[in-house]
Amino acid sequence: MSASLSRPRVGVWLIGARGSVATTVVTGCAAVTAGLHPPTGMVTETPAFTDSGLPALSDLVFGGHDTLDCPLPKRAETLTAGGVLPPGTATAVTAELAAADREIRPGGPARGDTRSETELITAFADDIRDFVDRQALERAVVVNVASTEPASQGPGSPLPASTLYALAALRAGCPYVNFTPSEGMHHPAAAREAERSGLPYAGRDGKTGQTLLRAVLGPMFAQRALTVRAWSGTNLLGGGDGAALADPAAAAAKNAGKERVLADTLGAVPQGEAHIDDVPALGDWKTAWDHIAFDGFLGTRMILQTIWQGCDSALAAPLVLDLARLTARAHEAGVSGPLGALGFYFKDPVGEGPAGLSEQYEELVRFGRSLGRADGEDRGVRSVRDTEETGEAL
Amino acid sequence: MSASLSRPRVGVWLIGARGSVATTVVTGCAAVTAGLHPPTGMVTETPAFTDSGLPALSDLVFGGHDTLDCPLPKRAETLTAGGVLPPGTATAVTAELAAADREIRPGGPARGDTRSETELITAFADDIRDFVDRQALERAVVVNVASTEPASQGPGSPLPASTLYALAALRAGCPYVNFTPSEGMHHPAAAREAERSGLPYAGRDGKTGQTLLRAVLGPMFAQRALTVRAWSGTNLLGGGDGAALADPAAAAAKNAGKERVLADTLGAVPQGEAHIDDVPALGDWKTAWDHIAFDGFLGTRMILQTIWQGCDSALAAPLVLDLARLTARAHEAGVSGPLGALGFYFKDPVGEGPAGLSEQYEELVRFGRSLGRADGEDRGVRSVRDTEETGEAL
Amino acid sequence: MSASLSRPRVGVWLIGARGSVATTVVTGCAAVTAGLHPPTGMVTETPAFTDSGLPALSDLVFGGHDTLDCPLPKRAETLTAGGVLPPGTATAVTAELAAADREIRPGGPARGDTRSETELITAFADDIRDFVDRQALERAVVVNVASTEPASQGPGSPLPASTLYALAALRAGCPYVNFTPSEGMHHPAAAREAERSGLPYAGRDGKTGQTLLRAVLGPMFAQRALTVRAWSGTNLLGGGDGAALADPAAAAAKNAGKERVLADTLGAVPQGEAHIDDVPALGDWKTAWDHIAFDGFLGTRMILQTIWQGCDSALAAPLVLDLARLTARAHEAGVSGPLGALGFYFKDPVGEGPAGLSEQYEELVRFGRSLGRADGEDRGVRSVRDTEETGEAL
Amino acid sequence: MSASLSRPRVGVWLIGARGSVATTVVTGCAAVTAGLHPPTGMVTETPAFTDSGLPALSDLVFGGHDTLDCPLPKRAETLTAGGVLPPGTATAVTAELAAADREIRPGGPARGDTRSETELITAFADDIRDFVDRQALERAVVVNVASTEPASQGPGSPLPASTLYALAALRAGCPYVNFTPSEGMHHPAAAREAERSGLPYAGRDGKTGQTLLRAVLGPMFAQRALTVRAWSGTNLLGGGDGAALADPAAAAAKNAGKERVLADTLGAVPQGEAHIDDVPALGDWKTAWDHIAFDGFLGTRMILQTIWQGCDSALAAPLVLDLARLTARAHEAGVSGPLGALGFYFKDPVGEGPAGLSEQYEELVRFGRSLGRADGEDRGVRSVRDTEETGEAL
Repeated sequence: MSASLSRPRVGVWLIGARGSVATTVVTGCAAVTAGLHPPTGMVTETPAFTDSGLPALSDLVFGGHDTLDCPLPKRAETLTAGGVLPPGTATAVTAELAAADREIRPGGPARGDTRSETELITAFADDIRDFVDRQALERAVVVNVASTEPASQGPGSPLPASTLYALAALRAGCPYVNFTPSEGMHHPAAAREAERSGLPYAGRDGKTGQTLLRAVLGPMFAQRALTVRAWSGTNLLGGGDGAALADPAAAAAKNAGKERVLADTLGAVPQGEAHIDDVPALGDWKTAWDHIAFDGFLGTRMILQTIWQGCDSALAAPLVLDLARLTARAHEAGVSGPLGALGFYFKDPVGEGPAGLSEQYEELVRFGRSLGRADGEDRGVRSVRDTEETGEAL
Repeated sequence: MSASLSRPRVGVWLIGARGSVATTVVTGCAAVTAGLHPPTGMVTETPAFTDSGLPALSDLVFGGHDTLDCPLPKRAETLTAGGVLPPGTATAVTAELAAADREIRPGGPARGDTRSETELITAFADDIRDFVDRQALERAVVVNVASTEPASQGPGSPLPASTLYALAALRAGCPYVNFTPSEGMHHPAAAREAERSGLPYAGRDGKTGQTLLRAVLGPMFAQRALTVRAWSGTNLLGGGDGAALADPAAAAAKNAGKERVLADTLGAVPQGEAHIDDVPALGDWKTAWDHIAFDGFLGTRMILQTIWQGCDSALAAPLVLDLARLTARAHEAGVSGPLGALGFYFKDPVGEGPAGLSEQYEELVRFGRSLGRADGEDRGVRSVRDTEETGEAL
Repeated sequence: MSASLSRPRVGVWLIGARGSVATTVVTGCAAVTAGLHPPTGMVTETPAFTDSGLPALSDLVFGGHDTLDCPLPKRAETLTAGGVLPPGTATAVTAELAAADREIRPGGPARGDTRSETELITAFADDIRDFVDRQALERAVVVNVASTEPASQGPGSPLPASTLYALAALRAGCPYVNFTPSEGMHHPAAAREAERSGLPYAGRDGKTGQTLLRAVLGPMFAQRALTVRAWSGTNLLGGGDGAALADPAAAAAKNAGKERVLADTLGAVPQGEAHIDDVPALGDWKTAWDHIAFDGFLGTRMILQTIWQGCDSALAAPLVLDLARLTARAHEAGVSGPLGALGFYFKDPVGEGPAGLSEQYEELVRFGRSLGRADGEDRGVRSVRDTEETGEAL
Repeated sequence: MSASLSRPRVGVWLIGARGSVATTVVTGCAAVTAGLHPPTGMVTETPAFTDSGLPALSDLVFGGHDTLDCPLPKRAETLTAGGVLPPGTATAVTAELAAADREIRPGGPARGDTRSETELITAFADDIRDFVDRQALERAVVVNVASTEPASQGPGSPLPASTLYALAALRAGCPYVNFTPSEGMHHPAAAREAERSGLPYAGRDGKTGQTLLRAVLGPMFAQRALTVRAWSGTNLLGGGDGAALADPAAAAAKNAGKERVLADTLGAVPQGEAHIDDVPALGDWKTAWDHIAFDGFLGTRMILQTIWQGCDSALAAPLVLDLARLTARAHEAGVSGPLGALGFYFKDPVGEGPAGLSEQYEELVRFGRSLGRADGEDRGVRSVRDTEETGEAL
């Protein structure tokens, strides 16, 4: 029996598998594994996580759902032309892109799709289980990196697609990560199922730019006893997310997360709005301007402004890899329920936890250490195939 | 015996007592005490320090040294016209300004001053002891808020004035805080004396703007495993400090502190320079622009820029009040040596401690709590008059 | 007969006479006349206009309509506390503020006002004529500096208040200036009357900040053959205008003007939105951030960002004084119809003229010169009292 | 006889022919000629210059001097990797790059070069004449795009290399353009020769970023009668120019040009400094931050900040092509001496002319029109081979 067979392989099932983030995730994982690039931006590759028992990057296997059908190598080419991927990288890992492409299944509901919600969930869960079986994976993590959905319409309206996928993950016995502001596991129906499933899950809405900054600047003002009077912001972005967030309903979900960070770190929501503008000319590049009006001693009025210019996919992709690894390991270690310790990664974290980035980082490191200690007892004991019954029970 | 007599009063002896910062300290302390303004910017007035046994703001008595002779009420008027102090406030506390003004003694060495260094130290220490005695203070803290000095010239050159004052503080048995980048207690001669004195001391160089930001942004990049390639900055400021720092030798001291924050939080000093420009038109208002070039996943180049527009004196004054109270209480509680736990306030902290602002804040809160616990045993036991022998021994 | 009696006095009738802009206009005119401040920001006080025959600042007499009733000296006090007016200035000219205050009449239509549009116009015109007569003015200019109205609802809906005032100005035989984006003389009904009246008029929407910048940056890109792909902007402002413009209908009128500048200078409207946020904490201070994504040689993507931090009233007031003087003089010189030569001052100018600021400046200077040449023939010949018949004919 | 033979070809001899700017010039000229990119950034390709009789881009032939020996196609590859040239473009025009590369001759003086100044000038002039003869060019323009030199040391010191090249241009009978702040034709010796030569020349220091902005913002403040109190700026750039300008002596030359724009447009030099920082991490990308403190009405303090992020070579290259064409045509049309009408392109223009960009643009268009009118009389009459005697006379 070869050594490679003895290494447990872990699936990463991406909802929105042909999008910019997913393409960057697959390309980057292969490129870092091949030594073409250092693992910049991946917290799980820093020394603090060496002993956490995380799956190796080389042991990750990618698949997913998408409603589009542009092949991944083609998508990677487009991202290269747009400056998101460095020249030459996508070409160097074209085999890995093609392999992931073969594991992408049509998402839904498609236009004119007559399947019921239950049928869709079943179909999605079957796709995930097939992936796990065919690839002989020890387990798979489902990660939502699809475009942001409009906020749900309330009781009686159909389940949003993100929630259908979340329920499919539970049914397939897979941990779930929601990197977007879409509802996913936050929907009341899904929330109940999640609790019963005993599976770990994390989310929502990756903290990649403006909100990352807010999570360190908010605490600074609070710790220095400076009174923030107004915090205003504008985000410019193109790409798919720019178009999706130009829909006020979709933007509302995102802005709620941004606002939560301020409320939680400042203790109150200051004046000011947050705009998200679709600027196709910017492509995948995002510019966020923040203007913070605060009072100092004796009411002196002062101002801090920040301008963040980043590539959205390049900011998100390493965090998605971090989350897939941490959540897979948590599942293996028998951790269940909302992973509050992953608040470091999210605008609107599930579970309990601090709001300031530094405290969130400390909690993440503690979590990583606890995953390492779990090793002796139960590493390898729990895998998706052992727990399939749980999934079936949904 | 009246209640007020039983309350121990604490002196705050300001080096540079007629400068913008000192004037704002005296005005602000009186205005907050009188309920004219909330204590915005004073960390020691937040709930975390309620039980630390700190002296009340109303129990602080101000005096100090200065080489200028503009009366404090007049200085406060100028600061009001310049928008540093809010309209009406200085007028409302003119009695307190006049009282502090009466306790200001000529600094030195003056031009043509023929006194030896020892004579100057003795004269300064006598001024401080007179203040303590005349005002019947329990103790006094010496705080350097004078303009930044040029960096010292090395062995054999005369002691910088800031070090003469630091030695005078030790001789008078007073704790010492250096809010400026000047050498003060960092001079080898003073360092030895400080150790022998058993007095607590803190410094140096208050973290009021650009470096405050760096102390939260540096850790953010480190925690997110993002590679900072270049961190460049420009500070524009007028007022006395602008002129002082236009001298490259003085700026060098300040920039060393700024650079230390980056080195300590990022683990390496990135490319980039820091400029300090004297722009008299800006008066006491400081603008700091920072440009941070960093690499994300797969080497994608991203940029963060920050613009901080603040009033230097209004940023410094509440921290000076915090430091005076904390250091006085530490002295009372028998704490001696470098107060590493006050690193939250400084660019280039004495003693040991973390470099990120959040960790520094946690350490500060812990220190505040430990000061509270010290209460039962020894509150009021130690005062400057008990320890005058220590001072004399210098 | 004294010299002062022989000097013709000119009325400035302000719609929104108790607002920040109007208060700053009255305070500033008096303060500059008294030599308390230089005429910074007043183009008509530069050498280019010395020989244009403009009325002296000391010959301007203020009055106006407003629906509020806070006395002008009180309003000036509030503006002083908010940092809009410099300390001491309002107090020094309190007599002039009180004098203007006595000439302010109730505006309308008030809530529950049952007067017809015709009755309102008549009442307003009577107020203006009374002012001219009582003060023995040679003529008066009506200037709209009221808060921005929502865009009009189309045919059949009631005339907006700004148009009622514009018609009142015509009926009173007065030139008219619209410094706001409100409809005023742009309403079809008013436009017809304006033509028949033979009176000069100007507008609309003063170019005070972001659009001023756009009027110089737009031509720069065009002249350098650089392709602007997206021009995005956010305005933060408090004060009355912030609240008024938080209404999307009001903001629409303003943004149309901003967009026109880009269309006219770039030859096409680029991608990007413009936001106007009400941030009460900023008071009368306005911050405008612009982000311009442009292509250079070989499609290289470049970015310019601008941040403008100004006091809205202080930017507007000197332009209002300029416009009142220029329009009064144009009236005196027999110029009639839309004053296209005043495009320098407006986002959405009436008449014909260039869109770039430099060309607009050149045209303004030419216009000033032509006003000077008109002197010999007809200075003083035409006054509002000669032409009252025209007004009556409306 | 083919049509192409009848078309006069014009040489562009680049000093610094292997640098980023030169490489972008050659690549871009070929790419635009081939229809791969639109002529973005080239003012001479706009309709205003259609009838100016300028040489076609396809008729330009490149050569030059350089002290480095990296082949142009290789250099273009590096620029592509650095994001300066778009992917694929350099490869598409590799033949044109190789052709230009064959016409590059070693510059000087090299280390240990024992040739006298006269010998160097003669050698350089011979190189240029050989180029003209071998390629059968009608004429050639010499353009300095080399790295900035330190400012010259005063009388008696050796001639700077840029001046040696300028003198060689004169001797070869070629018009000369100095796109850098180096001394070139400004050296007293060269100035005399230039006058005698009857050749047209232009310069110096291309206006590509911060100063371009200043040339439109300066006039805006002046035209609006706003008082600029301080204008501060910081430039960050990597690449060769970053390193060269980190030398304070080289930066001094550059900053003098920047300051001149402010002095000329504002009428006075405001407070504030300009820094140029070498930040290798930024490569050929330049970021310029400007902070302008100005006074409005009644002394209200306001601020404008600008941030310009551009690619230096992509900004410079189209201007270099413009200048080569305009200067070649001016030579053909018999224009001699300093070309003040090209002030639009320069920080520190030769000859007389306005300082505001709009006025400079108008003058440039007028100049273009006058070149067109010169056509009838003398197009093609004057060529470098006719005037070689002039060159020899030097």
